Amino acid sequence: MLSYKYLFDIALILISTKLLGLLTRRYHMPQVVGALLAGLIMGPAMLNILKETNFIHQMAELGVIVLMFTAGLETDIQELKKTGKASFVIALMGVIFPLVGGFVIAAFFNKGEGTTTSLIMQNIFIGIILTATSVSITVETLKELGKLSTRVGNAILGAALIDDILGIIGLTVIISLADPSPEVNIWWVLLKIILFFVSSLGIGFMFYVLFNKWVKRYDRDLRRFVIVSFVFCLLLAFAAEEFFGVADITGAFIAGLIISNTERTKYIAARFETMSYILLSPIFFASIGIMIEMPKMSGSIIWFTLLLLAIAVLTKIVGCGLGAKFCKYSNKESLRIGVGMVSRGEVALIVASKGAAVGLMSGVMFGPIVVMVVVTTIITPILLKLVFKNSSSKNAGHEAAAINV
Amino acid sequence: MLSYKYLFDIALILISTKLLGLLTRRYHMPQVVGALLAGLIMGPAMLNILKETNFIHQMAELGVIVLMFTAGLETDIQELKKTGKASFVIALMGVIFPLVGGFVIAAFFNKGEGTTTSLIMQNIFIGIILTATSVSITVETLKELGKLSTRVGNAILGAALIDDILGIIGLTVIISLADPSPEVNIWWVLLKIILFFVSSLGIGFMFYVLFNKWVKRYDRDLRRFVIVSFVFCLLLAFAAEEFFGVADITGAFIAGLIISNTERTKYIAARFETMSYILLSPIFFASIGIMIEMPKMSGSIIWFTLLLLAIAVLTKIVGCGLGAKFCKYSNKESLRIGVGMVSRGEVALIVASKGAAVGLMSGVMFGPIVVMVVVTTIITPILLKLVFKNSSSKNAGHEAAAINV
Repeated sequence: MLSYKYLFDIALILISTKLLGLLTRRYHMPQVVGALLAGLIMGPAMLNILKETNFIHQMAELGVIVLMFTAGLETDIQELKKTGKASFVIALMGVIFPLVGGFVIAAFFNKGEGTTTSLIMQNIFIGIILTATSVSITVETLKELGKLSTRVGNAILGAALIDDILGIIGLTVIISLADPSPEVNIWWVLLKIILFFVSSLGIGFMFYVLFNKWVKRYDRDLRRFVIVSFVFCLLLAFAAEEFFGVADITGAFIAGLIISNTERTKYIAARFETMSYILLSPIFFASIGIMIEMPKMSGSIIWFTLLLLAIAVLTKIVGCGLGAKFCKYSNKESLRIGVGMVSRGEVALIVASKGAAVGLMSGVMFGPIVVMVVVTTIITPILLKLVFKNSSSKNAGHEAAAINV
Repeated sequence: MLSYKYLFDIALILISTKLLGLLTRRYHMPQVVGALLAGLIMGPAMLNILKETNFIHQMAELGVIVLMFTAGLETDIQELKKTGKASFVIALMGVIFPLVGGFVIAAFFNKGEGTTTSLIMQNIFIGIILTATSVSITVETLKELGKLSTRVGNAILGAALIDDILGIIGLTVIISLADPSPEVNIWWVLLKIILFFVSSLGIGFMFYVLFNKWVKRYDRDLRRFVIVSFVFCLLLAFAAEEFFGVADITGAFIAGLIISNTERTKYIAARFETMSYILLSPIFFASIGIMIEMPKMSGSIIWFTLLLLAIAVLTKIVGCGLGAKFCKYSNKESLRIGVGMVSRGEVALIVASKGAAVGLMSGVMFGPIVVMVVVTTIITPILLKLVFKNSSSKNAGHEAAAINV
């Protein structure tokens, strides 16, 4: 017979993320902090009531896809085009700084076994891990603050997307260096990424034209619009992973962008918001906390952890911030953009486990990386709230009012 | 690495159920017929593109829970109280007729091996399988027709719930007779069922009072109302299975009933409707079709199948219809109630596999039962649409208009 435990799990996730979300909100922190903490508290790191099951894991995957799809739907595509070049510079600087920073600090601490070459590779890999950005936390926070469709919000979204691409390239390069089998070929990876964007552009344009024509034939909101949009999102997310080796959330975001300019976008976005907040989002944010098991650490590794954490936070703020500054963003905006890129979330963990699988990371490094991920993930929304204080965008009142938590 | 196939599966389910749903609608049949057919066509029975994965299975489970919860939310509790006695009579007659009918026809065909006693037990078991009613198909159809909150709709809902209870009792009796181990004790099962209803009543009343007080403190719709309602539904569904051996959907329905009378019920129900139609309902209805593998049959077993099917349909229509007639429903209403109870859905399959596990069913019987389930499931919405033709309830226009498919 089946187990019905999953009903209890979902109930526990929903109530704990909501309660802690309302609590963090009362103390002027974003609700997403509460949701992350709820997962951390219920998970193996603390109370151990919730374990990550396959079901929760896949619901969480679906959750982040819907989240990025909705972010795409709510993005001002004209604004995003304008910030395109800036996003690239921000992403590039936000990759170089953590890469170098991670390498230097790892080289200082890593006295592991192996040849000099393999040690250097291991140290570069720590740098690669630090380059990963998890944009979902930032997206949710900016939504809560009503700042997603602003100049800063767009710059962050664009930069995070490009960061994702640069991250795949970096990861592929280092793995192809470590693993000389012909399966991993850097040029093939690059070609596939280019092919992905070219074909997304083509398919996206065709879909947009047909969808818009179809939608305009009706004078009211229909459920079928929502279903067809969702199907398009799922297929693009699937195709990104399956055929091009690009992250599924990138596919979902682009699908959202393509549909963001139709007459029924508001109606469609509202429906996905509903599905998100009732079920998928709480599961996704809690699952990040649930995934984490707190490592046991002692001695010099604690110092390494603290330094790694500082490097992780500072290199993103300084790197992305400088990038933004180069592109003529104000000091305030540059700081906001830098802070928005700090969160590492689950992406860094996935990268780390891939590296461990091909022998690029010694086990002792796993603890510091977990701590780095947990702390950057939880402080990003808090820092964002701080750097967005005293701003008076018109958008803020409007978007925030729409959410009756 | 993870498989991203599930994204494709969901996309395929959503688009095929919608397309076939719109097609069946065009031919004046309920959309749910299309959704069932979509699963059957995509599944192993025909094209074999979709297989039932654990993820789809659990999403489907969650889907039927949300469906029954929404049905509870939309039920007129005063009306349901009025129909209570009638529902019991309808359910009882709807159990006795198929039980006897199934036994008789099985006794006629079943020339299997074994002692006379074990043959008689096997034949009774075929009767037990025929008693199962799957109300979810009927609920969805009545919703589409705008007839869920009518006198007939309430009678069906109530009867289906009681049928579920009678079914558990019947199944337990026959299994305890076949399996003399002390784990299966009929009195203990009965006690637990009574305990479930008593404690649901107590907890439900307390929850209702507290929830209503809490909700009234705010002057607007808030997301937290939806979350708390959902948590209550999930916990009651979980508790029903875990502690009382009652179906989780019964728990979910009762949770819906309890919340059906608050000031924010409409707002809450609308949110669950959205989550249902975007994701959970299509997966649930398609999964019923996906579950089915068409059996190979020949000779006398085909005749048995046809007879079993006729008995399955007629005994429910006649049994429940007579029950309704006894309780002073009009001829038309009695026919509608009888037809609404015909669908066997997944419940009969679950019962059959339980029986097979304890040796109460020979393998040759499985094919006819699968066919009986498929056909009763698909014809129920079609028959319902037929018997509800030319009705002019005020409710109909209102409810149907709210759904912009």
